[in-house]
Amino acid sequence: MPVPRLFVATPLAPAAEIELGDAQARYLTSVLRLGPGARVLLFNGADGEWSAEVGSVGKRGATLVCREATRPQILSPDLLLLFAPVKRAGTDLIVEKATELGVRTLQPVLTRRTQSESVRTDRLRAIAIEAAEQTERLDVPEIFEATPLGKVLGRWDATRRLLFADEAGDARSVPPALAGNGGPAEAGGTNMALLIGPEGGFEPDERRMLRALAFVTPVSLGPRILRAETAVIAALALIQAHWGDWQG
Amino acid sequence: MPVPRLFVATPLAPAAEIELGDAQARYLTSVLRLGPGARVLLFNGADGEWSAEVGSVGKRGATLVCREATRPQILSPDLLLLFAPVKRAGTDLIVEKATELGVRTLQPVLTRRTQSESVRTDRLRAIAIEAAEQTERLDVPEIFEATPLGKVLGRWDATRRLLFADEAGDARSVPPALAGNGGPAEAGGTNMALLIGPEGGFEPDERRMLRALAFVTPVSLGPRILRAETAVIAALALIQAHWGDWQG
Repeated sequence: MPVPRLFVATPLAPAAEIELGDAQARYLTSVLRLGPGARVLLFNGADGEWSAEVGSVGKRGATLVCREATRPQILSPDLLLLFAPVKRAGTDLIVEKATELGVRTLQPVLTRRTQSESVRTDRLRAIAIEAAEQTERLDVPEIFEATPLGKVLGRWDATRRLLFADEAGDARSVPPALAGNGGPAEAGGTNMALLIGPEGGFEPDERRMLRALAFVTPVSLGPRILRAETAVIAALALIQAHWGDWQG
Repeated sequence: MPVPRLFVATPLAPAAEIELGDAQARYLTSVLRLGPGARVLLFNGADGEWSAEVGSVGKRGATLVCREATRPQILSPDLLLLFAPVKRAGTDLIVEKATELGVRTLQPVLTRRTQSESVRTDRLRAIAIEAAEQTERLDVPEIFEATPLGKVLGRWDATRRLLFADEAGDARSVPPALAGNGGPAEAGGTNMALLIGPEGGFEPDERRMLRALAFVTPVSLGPRILRAETAVIAALALIQAHWGDWQG
């Protein structure tokens, strides 16, 4: 069995004691059946990964003691995903997969044809934490509150390029659209964002508005109709392979 | 509402009459609420796509009449997916997404660490048909019966190159591994296959055997641990963008 990994929201340092709340303590004792002395890996998004030892465990909580650092902190590449929430299972899948694929920030956006207006950000954050634990990330993606697309574009940082999955079909594929962009700003390139629309696509005037923005590059995801979650995963894989941390 | 698309297993030609069985007739009448005269698109994997008109509808069946061809038949690129079945929801997702991403053939393979030995191929075929209808494919991927990996490799057509997602981490990314391969054999290149292992990965001697085969190229899917279905979608997107029908 691989060593369990847990995200905690407390500082990690040599001999630091970490108090787990009810839910994580129950997971350690009831699901994983760990007792005092067992080994667990911890990360908090800032201090790298640490090996820790289970101290006391009880019904109401558990204490872990940090032993040694196992990996230095790194952040996922500065990649922002804008996605229109779809049905609950699809939205959950988008958050889980974007976490596996190393997105740093998620922004649910409301478009004209967005069907799901109520986005439970706290639930999505819990999904992102669990996916980060399993995918062995050292950070958890930040998830912003759902916001109308126009508002997000209105306050855009123009140094970030936005790839927009355009179903209309005359756009280039992702690799040529990324040519010449040597990675995130911290590696000398340009930070990226990806926009995936709702199941019904964008309204014609939303498309025109997007294509008129200087920081937007439309891209095509092939000749077939993709579900929103498939489009997210496919485009993110191409971005990580050509711009992000799947290279070399 | 987009025009409904149905896969049928009968010839399509001008004025051909198509008898739908119970399930499809119920779908047309109860879910889509279509009556006589309504328009439906049909495909059968051989005769292209046809516009058809609902003739009679009843509780036990429905009749459609072919009007005119709307798209000529094309096949998806000759891409074979070998995948180790995972839990049911994951396997369902793999079949649905491989269909959206244009895989021509699916071969479930049993590896040492494959957890699910019973693969209901008939159920997977139904999922592939529904996904082909929605993704606007003109063919439905063929799904073979689950077979031990060694047997599949033992009867391999050595003109087909197999990309093997190797979690060990020293392999190249997919785009350089595909460099120089100009598409499927019918376009002058080399037909492709992709192998994605089970959640627990391959046993060390399975890995050694795979890497020793002349037709196998190991590839890396980045620094994080991906679930099997995420790996399938990500690798297929890269293959279609660099070898298949997402280009230009």
